[in-house]
Amino acid sequence: MSFNQSVQKSLELLQDEICLGLENLDGRSKFREDKWVREGGGGGRTRIIENGDLIEKGGVNFSAVHGKLPDVVKNSLGATENEFFACGVSIVLHPNSPYVPIIHMNVRYFELGDGTYWFGGGIDLTPHFVDRSLASKFHKRLKHTCDQFQPDFYPKFKEWADDYFFNKHRMETRGVGGIFYDKLDEEKSNLSKDELLDFTLAVGQTFVPAYTEQTENRADPIVEQDREWQRLRRGRYVEFNLVYDRGTKFGLETSGRIESILMSLPRDASWIYDYQPRNSRERNTMELLKKGIDWI
Amino acid sequence: MSFNQSVQKSLELLQDEICLGLENLDGRSKFREDKWVREGGGGGRTRIIENGDLIEKGGVNFSAVHGKLPDVVKNSLGATENEFFACGVSIVLHPNSPYVPIIHMNVRYFELGDGTYWFGGGIDLTPHFVDRSLASKFHKRLKHTCDQFQPDFYPKFKEWADDYFFNKHRMETRGVGGIFYDKLDEEKSNLSKDELLDFTLAVGQTFVPAYTEQTENRADPIVEQDREWQRLRRGRYVEFNLVYDRGTKFGLETSGRIESILMSLPRDASWIYDYQPRNSRERNTMELLKKGIDWI
Repeated sequence: MSFNQSVQKSLELLQDEICLGLENLDGRSKFREDKWVREGGGGGRTRIIENGDLIEKGGVNFSAVHGKLPDVVKNSLGATENEFFACGVSIVLHPNSPYVPIIHMNVRYFELGDGTYWFGGGIDLTPHFVDRSLASKFHKRLKHTCDQFQPDFYPKFKEWADDYFFNKHRMETRGVGGIFYDKLDEEKSNLSKDELLDFTLAVGQTFVPAYTEQTENRADPIVEQDREWQRLRRGRYVEFNLVYDRGTKFGLETSGRIESILMSLPRDASWIYDYQPRNSRERNTMELLKKGIDWI
Repeated sequence: MSFNQSVQKSLELLQDEICLGLENLDGRSKFREDKWVREGGGGGRTRIIENGDLIEKGGVNFSAVHGKLPDVVKNSLGATENEFFACGVSIVLHPNSPYVPIIHMNVRYFELGDGTYWFGGGIDLTPHFVDRSLASKFHKRLKHTCDQFQPDFYPKFKEWADDYFFNKHRMETRGVGGIFYDKLDEEKSNLSKDELLDFTLAVGQTFVPAYTEQTENRADPIVEQDREWQRLRRGRYVEFNLVYDRGTKFGLETSGRIESILMSLPRDASWIYDYQPRNSRERNTMELLKKGIDWI
């Protein structure tokens, strides 16, 4: 099996594993699958879960595409070669309850025809109401996973996430961050290509246990005012994804499968002109949407 | 009075006139005003109307700013000069009823320190359900206004609007279009600078009567399923504004006043994975969200 094939196979298995884990966690809804084929080469398995006990709307998508890079992408990558192979798993979950965070994960592998390759990925958490102790648990898990591979991964990738998941026009982070990394190869990581794949899979396997412990408040009765706040925070999530997210931009520019790309958007979102926080939990959340917080 | 001053004065009056007209049309809510000052020079008057009888959320904004252009904007304009003056009125109205269209208008004047100047603007209509006869009325009014200045304005600017107000990733127009123009000066228009200002004001004065005749269904009882459709169409409006709209991008990049820029977003919006039209009115609307339709 070529390296490409083993990346593809193991990411397909990762998707299966995460979907099963999330169905167990949800307890009511199951994923439905849409298989799609890309005209230029490859395709994917989009899996959507809706109207669950825990998850209102979410997707766990796998894709493996290849062919010729559009020039706009080739140039933005500074590539001299336009044969490519790209494979990844992307997840966004919007829970029903405002007391459970939104979560996102993406792991990906990219290769050019000349043999250049890199891994990229990230997980980040977007609580509607920030809770320091839950944020700390999340970061501890990510640090634990990273530390098994390189001691500098967690601090580097945590800072990268703070910078990446940032709504610049509002000067606020999307949530409490997590880890983000890109263009990771043997040279930059001091890990072999196989070890980098192991790291990728380890990040992926952190997803279900990390999210499970974030859902402890899922059954708390919901105050109507908190639902409105949730919709407003979802509005910020929409702003980030449509204005800044590189994966979304890449997908829209390369005419990827739109419904798979925009599965990241919430069931509903709100905007109120010049909204000001109405209570201490809303104010507290706004104060914690900052870069550089040491959550651990 | 310098030309800049008379543009500024007449656009302030236009804002006043439109706000009065819309308050009369709404019959319940009044605009509230936020005056703001831009650090680099100038400022604006943001006027917001909410929870009206007709209008759920809308803004009629005036701004007149000057100073030094950020390099990113200077380069994207191909300008060699970075002293600038920009003045405009921007409107977006989201009505309560799904049977009344969303409407947008922007008119603007831009000048560089070396005397280069241009006018730009547009009005477009986004019905949640497209009605051919209402779309035709709208376009007739715009044609009538344009024809008073140049016979080729309407056909040129109508096509420009079809191209501009287009969600490329979905291959659908935002609505039934209208007119859009940019970088209009004496040379490109065969009109004098004063006549171009007159054209700008004539476009602005078309706004209230044109919208008034679009609101004839405002009191129709609302079917719940149509409310959901309205939220989905508002989702597409959000996609256009955050992904493509140049005014929004310019505002976010130059750190304009965020709340004034994002007043264009609706009170609420929805996304459903792979939504398919459920009835003939939804299907009919999707079939009419195409470029090149001769509405007149």
